[in-house]
Formats: sequence, C-alpha cells, structure tokens
Amino acid sequence: MAVGEQELHVEIGQRRYPIHIGSQNLNTLGEVLTQTFSASPRKVFILSNPTVADLYLSTAQASIRAAGFEHSDAHVFLMPDGEVYKSLDTFRDIMDCLVAQRLSRDSIIVALGGGVVGDMAGFVAATWQRGVDFVQVPTTLLAQVDSSVGGKTAVNHPGGKNLIGAFHQPSAVLIDIATLNSLPPREFLAGFAEVIKYGIMADADFFTWLETNLSKILERDANALMTAVKRSCEIKAAVVAEDETEQGVRALLNLGHTFGHAIESHTQYTRWLHGEAVAAGMLMATKLAEHCGYVSPADAHRIEQLLIASGYQLQPPQDMTPDIWWSLMARDKKVKAGKIRFILPTAIGSAAIFDQISADQLNAILA
Amino acid sequence: MAVGEQELHVEIGQRRYPIHIGSQNLNTLGEVLTQTFSASPRKVFILSNPTVADLYLSTAQASIRAAGFEHSDAHVFLMPDGEVYKSLDTFRDIMDCLVAQRLSRDSIIVALGGGVVGDMAGFVAATWQRGVDFVQVPTTLLAQVDSSVGGKTAVNHPGGKNLIGAFHQPSAVLIDIATLNSLPPREFLAGFAEVIKYGIMADADFFTWLETNLSKILERDANALMTAVKRSCEIKAAVVAEDETEQGVRALLNLGHTFGHAIESHTQYTRWLHGEAVAAGMLMATKLAEHCGYVSPADAHRIEQLLIASGYQLQPPQDMTPDIWWSLMARDKKVKAGKIRFILPTAIGSAAIFDQISADQLNAILA
Repeated sequence: MAVGEQELHVEIGQRRYPIHIGSQNLNTLGEVLTQTFSASPRKVFILSNPTVADLYLSTAQASIRAAGFEHSDAHVFLMPDGEVYKSLDTFRDIMDCLVAQRLSRDSIIVALGGGVVGDMAGFVAATWQRGVDFVQVPTTLLAQVDSSVGGKTAVNHPGGKNLIGAFHQPSAVLIDIATLNSLPPREFLAGFAEVIKYGIMADADFFTWLETNLSKILERDANALMTAVKRSCEIKAAVVAEDETEQGVRALLNLGHTFGHAIESHTQYTRWLHGEAVAAGMLMATKLAEHCGYVSPADAHRIEQLLIASGYQLQPPQDMTPDIWWSLMARDKKVKAGKIRFILPTAIGSAAIFDQISADQLNAILA
Repeated sequence: MAVGEQELHVEIGQRRYPIHIGSQNLNTLGEVLTQTFSASPRKVFILSNPTVADLYLSTAQASIRAAGFEHSDAHVFLMPDGEVYKSLDTFRDIMDCLVAQRLSRDSIIVALGGGVVGDMAGFVAATWQRGVDFVQVPTTLLAQVDSSVGGKTAVNHPGGKNLIGAFHQPSAVLIDIATLNSLPPREFLAGFAEVIKYGIMADADFFTWLETNLSKILERDANALMTAVKRSCEIKAAVVAEDETEQGVRALLNLGHTFGHAIESHTQYTRWLHGEAVAAGMLMATKLAEHCGYVSPADAHRIEQLLIASGYQLQPPQDMTPDIWWSLMARDKKVKAGKIRFILPTAIGSAAIFDQISADQLNAILA
C-alpha cells in the first residue's frame, strides 16, 4: 500500500466524524478545521506539552492562522509531560487559563500530543461551558491507534486511573504518521501493544500480518505504519460505532487493561507506560484464558510469541501479591455488581467477557 | 385542582424520564428507583447538605432500603450549604469519597436538596467513571421548577458561574411540594422568580394566573403550589425536549440570567441568591426591551408590577458601573462570536434573542 492520505469515518448515532490519516500532513490542520467547521472567526485553543510543542506547535499554529481562525500564542496551554499530570490539578490550571482567555462556548480546542494530552483536552472540552468542539491531533502511536478515536476522555484520581471523565467525541481526528519518527523507542513500543490488541481481539488476518511484518513496523517503515494505524483505527471505529458508551462489545477493547491498570496503579503511574502495562496484562489475560480452557494452547502460544518478539517486559512487579492484585482490580471501572469482569482471548481474532472467574483460577496464574 | 400525585415526562431524543410531583411523597423514593431501574443490589449514594439532611435524609434512606437497594450511612455525602461550595474543591472532596466507597459504574446517585446539591450531584454523576445514573429529589422551589429538570449540571469557577459542567439527564425526578414548607421565605421567593419567568417567556395564561393567585402562592397554599410547580415543569420539559443542548430555543430560559449572573458574580455569589438576581435581571431585561421598542409599555408594566408585588429587591448593587456590567456580561456562556446575547421579553408569554444591542441602548438602562 502506498503512503497516501487516507480518510476513515466514525459513525455514532446521528453523528459522524472523519479520521484523516497521512504522512507529513500536519500542515493541513487548518484545512481540516475549515472542512469540519464553517470558516469563521472562531477562537482555537491548543493543549499540548513542551516536548511535542518544540517539534510541532509552530506548524500547527501557522496552519490554523492561515485558515483564518483566531489564534494567538496566549491560546496555548502546555501541560507537563507524563501520566501523573493527567490530574484534577492540571484540569483546574487549564480551566483557569480558559477563564483568563475568556474562551467562549463556540471556541475549538485542539489536542496536540499523546494520550495524556488528548484525554485531558477531551475532558476539558467536555466540561468547559458544558461542552465545546474539539479536534484530536495525536502524535504518539498509542494516541493514534487508540485514545484519540472513540470519545473517551478522563483524568486520573490517586485511587484509580481515568476515574473522572466523560464521553465526548471529537469533531475530527488528524493523524500524521511522520510524527511517530520522533517517538522514543519505549513510547513507540508501548503504543504498539494496542495494535497487537486489535489483532488478538478482532482480526486474525491482521494478527498474522503483524507476525509477518513485525520487523518492518519496529523499524517504523512508513508503509507498514500506515497499514497498522489505519487497520487499528478501522477496528476501533467499528467497535465504537456499535457501542459508544461501553454497554457491551466496547468492553472487549479493554483486553489486558484490567491487569494493566492494576500494574500502573500499583506503581503510581510512574514506572510503567500504559501500553507496557497492557502488554503484560494481555499475556496474563491469555494465560488465565488458557488455564480456564477458554483459548487453545496453540493460540495462546502465538500471542505470547508475538509479545516476546516485540520486546516487551512481560513480568509484572514482583511485589504484587495476589491480595494486592484483587484489591486493585476490584476498583476497576469494569466491576459490575461486585464482580470483576475479565476480557479474555478465546482465539486469535476474538475475545469475550468473563465475570465468573474464581479466586483459585486467578491465583493459579498470579502465583 | 386537587393535591394529588402527578406524573409528567421529559422526552429527549430516544430517552424519556418521569417527573413525579406530589405532596408528602418523599417516602416513595424507593418505589421510584424500583420503577426506574430494575430491582437489583445496586448501590445508592446520596448527596445532600446538613440542613436538608436533618429534615429529610432518614425518610429517603428508609424508603431506599425498604426497596432493596444497597445503602449505608457511609453512602452519604453532606456538602456545605451555599452557592460558594458549588466548587471544584467540593467536587474533588466528593470524588475522594466515591473512591473510598468504591462506588462502581452501576451505582445510582441521588441528589437530595436544592439547586446547589442538584447541580453538583449531576456533575459528579456525569463524570464519575464517565457517567452513572442519577435521580433528582429537589427540595427547594428553585430546584423543583428549574434546575432539577433538563440535565444542566455544573460547578462554578471564581471567574464565572457554571463555567465547568456537562449535560447529563437524570433518570427520574421526584418532587415533594411538602418540602417547600420548610423553606426560608427568602429562598422560596428566589425560586418563585423562575416561575414568573416561565409566565413571561412562554405562557400568557399562566402569567395571568400568577397575577391572580399571587397571595395564595406566597402563603404556600398546596393547591396553588402544585399548579405552579407542575406548569413550570411542563414548560421547562417542553423547551428541553426541543433543544437539549441550547442550540436555539432553550436559550430563552435564560431570560434575566445574563444580568442576574453579572450581579451574582460581582457580589461573589454571597449576597444575592440566584433567583433574587434573576428577578432583578428580568426587570432590567424588560426595561431594555421597552427602551428598544421590543415590548409594549403596557406589558412591561405588568411584568414590573408582578415583580414588585412579589416583594423582590429589584435595584442592582449601586457600585456596578456600566464598565463592570459589560466586563461581567462579556464572560457569560451565551456570548457568541464576541457578541453579548440578550434574552428579552417581546410580550407577556414570549421572548426572543437579541444580539445587536448597542452600548448606548444598554447604557441608557444601566444609568
């Protein structure tokens, strides 16, 4: 597949929004805004972080201004980099800035950065004056294939990840895969865990393609990245279209996340990146599924092999006792009527929700 | 009209929720929850304040428990009484409590109290784990006729009222007009301003009925209150059904609010109750409309007379200069493309949006 501009759409009820995927297309941001909103003197506010801003802010700003939107350097908030800053404290700082800038209800908020920036900008857009328009410009692999699509927005609470948030769909998503070239290897690999997740839970052919093209992807070959990002977005968009607010099938996207969130929470969001924890969590989910007889040993083996070949640290922290696991997982948002709900693979390309896992079954794989 | 149980419905897109109106019906809360949600071991969390809790909490709790829901005294948060506590600080305290109580996504939040409690509980319900169900049990006139119906939730920012919030519809509203007997006269009168507003903006017959029955209402005659509350809820429900997120007609409900919010903000939400500020604001809106020739002097006179006969303080703070007014109103959420949008009466029973009011016109009535 050639590296060309691609456009997908997410359809949710009456609403529909585009995902523009390309390479070196960040300078089309102004055009995307013009296509999405009528050209007007609306104010555009950008949320980013210092690392991303150094690389991409001036391109984004020039494009926005050239398209005729109102945007000055005062309409930028750079939040500190890192999951620990996805907090109510940062939320409050941003709100103070919006008040100071008198951002009105018809303003547009642009998220320029990774998952932390996108989740925060989305929650700010969901709640500023009861909701304003926002556009996602994800610059990390994790954000491009996962968090920028689907409208989940949130901040963390010391008691758990993403506990405070809202569903608020972006008006458009602009993905420039060239921004992935600037990603540190650890961040790139963390994001790739979500790509593998789509293969496991939804698409056996894609999983096989990932096995075959692993080295190209890890070398960040542009064609391979376009395919991986596009297919991931397609799967995510299809799932979200079916179940926006996670009443059913959308829960399957949390494969590996119940375990992963416990690892992140236990290590206070400082030592493991989200995707790293998800990779370890997917292996634990696979082991649990195999132990319970829900997935074949052969499929479980392929999943484990792809995770190992990708280079993940798959051993959870040694100091996590079964008691700690239970206590952390019981706080998960997926808990329903007191039962922990596990998303487990049932084959390459499919997964299901299990809420009758016994303590014995779980303890067997935790040991 | 006899004082009997009434049931209205709010219809928004595919969703529909009931408003139960009665007298001495607080003890049916458990039944209402059972009708609204399937009977199940779901946890119920109550947000209230100490004043309201002293009077009504035990009745509400007994009813919830008798209906089989999970509810202990630990599932209650009493926030301090007063608009200044509708803040991000209180929001954070409540979130800490929900984390400590491990409130899961299938829990139900009940707002037992006035507008402050309802707005806060609604915003908590909108954002806890990206949204949980909630039920409004308004115990003030303001909350019964206005804030509990329609799904507007918010907290204040020092820079402006309700700047941080979300649209999140309740699953049901339970109104017990007997709770109005415990309201201090000032609070009762403040809430009545919103009742008068419905007459001015939407229903000339209702306005005439208010003129005729004013003394009965102010004496809190049960029959008169049922009629006033029910008609107010009907009008509000109809407007919200037509325009949930205030793209058009819903803005008319803000009659008097642009001026009123400026008064509240200028006095830091401490000296004027919301409804008191709205009453003064409605008179200012009426004077402005009359000055511009949008409403007849005869209709303007009737509006002014009803506000005076009700006993409102109608003179805004003396230290509010035209500059202060402009600056505060420019922060209003209704500002669009830099223009302040005024909702002005055009006759008894109708209002419209005006966004071309000149500084001269406004200054004439501010002087």
